Amino acid sequence: MKIALFPGSFDPITLGHIDLIERAIPLFDKVIVAIGQNTQKQYHFDLEQRKSWVNAVCSKYDNVELGLYQGLTVNYAKEVQSHYLIRGLRNASDFDYEKTISQLNNIIGEGIETVFFISKPKYSHISSTIVREIIKGKGNVSEFVPDEVYEQISANY
Amino acid sequence: MKIALFPGSFDPITLGHIDLIERAIPLFDKVIVAIGQNTQKQYHFDLEQRKSWVNAVCSKYDNVELGLYQGLTVNYAKEVQSHYLIRGLRNASDFDYEKTISQLNNIIGEGIETVFFISKPKYSHISSTIVREIIKGKGNVSEFVPDEVYEQISANY
Amino acid sequence: MKIALFPGSFDPITLGHIDLIERAIPLFDKVIVAIGQNTQKQYHFDLEQRKSWVNAVCSKYDNVELGLYQGLTVNYAKEVQSHYLIRGLRNASDFDYEKTISQLNNIIGEGIETVFFISKPKYSHISSTIVREIIKGKGNVSEFVPDEVYEQISANY
Amino acid sequence: MKIALFPGSFDPITLGHIDLIERAIPLFDKVIVAIGQNTQKQYHFDLEQRKSWVNAVCSKYDNVELGLYQGLTVNYAKEVQSHYLIRGLRNASDFDYEKTISQLNNIIGEGIETVFFISKPKYSHISSTIVREIIKGKGNVSEFVPDEVYEQISANY
Amino acid sequence: MKIALFPGSFDPITLGHIDLIERAIPLFDKVIVAIGQNTQKQYHFDLEQRKSWVNAVCSKYDNVELGLYQGLTVNYAKEVQSHYLIRGLRNASDFDYEKTISQLNNIIGEGIETVFFISKPKYSHISSTIVREIIKGKGNVSEFVPDEVYEQISANY
Amino acid sequence: MKIALFPGSFDPITLGHIDLIERAIPLFDKVIVAIGQNTQKQYHFDLEQRKSWVNAVCSKYDNVELGLYQGLTVNYAKEVQSHYLIRGLRNASDFDYEKTISQLNNIIGEGIETVFFISKPKYSHISSTIVREIIKGKGNVSEFVPDEVYEQISANY
Repeated sequence: MKIALFPGSFDPITLGHIDLIERAIPLFDKVIVAIGQNTQKQYHFDLEQRKSWVNAVCSKYDNVELGLYQGLTVNYAKEVQSHYLIRGLRNASDFDYEKTISQLNNIIGEGIETVFFISKPKYSHISSTIVREIIKGKGNVSEFVPDEVYEQISANY
Repeated sequence: MKIALFPGSFDPITLGHIDLIERAIPLFDKVIVAIGQNTQKQYHFDLEQRKSWVNAVCSKYDNVELGLYQGLTVNYAKEVQSHYLIRGLRNASDFDYEKTISQLNNIIGEGIETVFFISKPKYSHISSTIVREIIKGKGNVSEFVPDEVYEQISANY
Repeated sequence: MKIALFPGSFDPITLGHIDLIERAIPLFDKVIVAIGQNTQKQYHFDLEQRKSWVNAVCSKYDNVELGLYQGLTVNYAKEVQSHYLIRGLRNASDFDYEKTISQLNNIIGEGIETVFFISKPKYSHISSTIVREIIKGKGNVSEFVPDEVYEQISANY
Repeated sequence: MKIALFPGSFDPITLGHIDLIERAIPLFDKVIVAIGQNTQKQYHFDLEQRKSWVNAVCSKYDNVELGLYQGLTVNYAKEVQSHYLIRGLRNASDFDYEKTISQLNNIIGEGIETVFFISKPKYSHISSTIVREIIKGKGNVSEFVPDEVYEQISANY
Repeated sequence: MKIALFPGSFDPITLGHIDLIERAIPLFDKVIVAIGQNTQKQYHFDLEQRKSWVNAVCSKYDNVELGLYQGLTVNYAKEVQSHYLIRGLRNASDFDYEKTISQLNNIIGEGIETVFFISKPKYSHISSTIVREIIKGKGNVSEFVPDEVYEQISANY
Repeated sequence: MKIALFPGSFDPITLGHIDLIERAIPLFDKVIVAIGQNTQKQYHFDLEQRKSWVNAVCSKYDNVELGLYQGLTVNYAKEVQSHYLIRGLRNASDFDYEKTISQLNNIIGEGIETVFFISKPKYSHISSTIVREIIKGKGNVSEFVPDEVYEQISANY
């Protein structure tokens, strides 16, 4: 069984993440969208909120499920028997960072493989960081996040 | 009337910023050099100080004025009826970031256009970040900032 | 009178070029779309064909016209009294090349200014080079070129 | 049945190509290593030679086979019922080029997907171009190409 | 006497740093591995720890010694009569940053020269930042740091 | 004796090359400016002309001399007992290319080391390619090449 891990903060989950999930589904038997919790990091949305949104997205697909972990991504991958990480590449700046991380994971993760997709043009300007900035500025994020996220944010602000 | 907005922190304003202002002037009827205030961000120089320096620079040109805003740049642009943002590009790293931001502003700003200039060689290594580091290290910033800024910094340190 | 020169081979003109022209129009009094002829270079479409397509595009706009030149772009700019070049940036690779060319033109062109727009996401994968490859492979270029070009290519192949 | 197409000139096939093939095998039911023939392009090694080397490599794996095509890659992919292209990324320069090509193939190939792997550090400086330069200079390419290629080249030169 | 300064945080020193030191040794009469202390910055390992590790490394070579400084690197360089900085480049993202810093140091350091080496493939994914992340996640850093660092970290965690 | 090889086509030698030579001189006992002749490549200026210009430049410095070679750079380096190559880096695009070449030379050249300098801002837009384009367009290259080259070009055109 080929299991892919899609690790991230998902603070919040965006349409860019969803595009990646949908492109990974046909290649793997199961895709785990895994929220990595770093106790030293500050998040804009709390864990319960982020879990709830990721869950809402995962439930739309067979064979996609929510995961949660602390510590190194490769340790969690081992735990859930995943030999693949999936990551998106938006631009050349992403590339150098992701190259370093994937080579590292390959070494400390005993051969774990990272499979990359290049973001589609209509998603290549979307990142959680930017979505958070727009939310802080009370701008409209309807074109960047799934309906579940948009509705809740609009209701709260 | 074509109004261009030049948004930034200007912490402090540098010769690189001024080069950009001077290159934008002939293209627009008015250039607003707008200090964006982010209450969650820490600045090296306080708002009054930054305003005073930007003002000193603006007053040297007809049709260049100081602006102040909080929140999203595109909201302020709408408020002052500016349909253009101006930004400088120093290197390929700047490029990927600015590409993302400009595409985003175009979407949430209902078609707002960003016009780019590539920094001249003699200014391409100047950034406010680096100027602040030199100031903290008590180095000489006379080649990087306008006289008003340099004199006050030298007097204070 | 502010005149912008948009230099290129236009072999053939694409939707990416047209987007750039439309974004330049509001900033300038006149935009000259200028085909540079380099006798040492081989073109896929002959000059008459390229002129005819650029002309068809230009005629849709007031204040946009076709130009033709040989030799250095800055010499032609001087001849037509244009102090501005306009160029599009698609990605970081474009950036380093265009930075070099614009600094050079600024020096040999006595202060000529290059104004840059970053390609919109939906156009950032379009280049004349790639369009030519698709044409050679008899693929469908209808999403990449204006109707005039598409119709003629389809009729011929 | 998930079929992946690995298109290229393979002039000659290198250890970098082989690494990519081995990483693609577990993800797909079949991998077609397809030599694209462009009649306007000049190759260092003739088609028979390149076919023979690719064949020697393919024969070491189950479910990996040689392909041959002319014209657009997406047309050949359709012909062999492959919905996936596989490509390697070595550095940021590769990235911008491959991004453009993959977006293009997605459009003209009716949704064809490109899956990327980032080259392992020990292969990231290998390219067919560089191998050819070393061969022309009569240098030792034993660390860059499979044994079959190395032996034949050494015998001939 | 040609003295090279290798400035950094060394939080902790890695095999990548050591590769750079060994490549600089034949070019200079003395190499000073200098830990820059920034009072506003938080370090993972305290100064005594970092000094002890750098010292252990330096002691393996003739003509390599530990340095310590606060404030601008160029001021310390002047103090120890070093006219050369040495830096490693791992990828294109490093490049734009290091270009800016080296041009700056050249100006404020009255002509100080920075000599660059490009990281060897096997070290190009190693950075202190990444080593710290692995340590926080209790992963194995034996392939990234010298034995002295590895043993102490393993003993403590 | 530390000998550095500065390999290139020098078609023609530029102020950027000279800056590099002058920065390498204090680090090495001898600098060989070596014109690589590739019989399959077309040059704008013939070998005699390029030799004459490089010679004129070398003669201004003690310990700088002209070299000539065919084939692989590392073979020539071995022949002249040079263990160092020197190269300039202008921008991030240069970086990825030079990284590949230097890693390759390190492998096929049995440990040969490449030392890099980053171009000074005033030289970072100069390349022989661009100088040739200006010359073809009969533009003024006085700011890009040494006097010897400029005078002869002006006299001939």
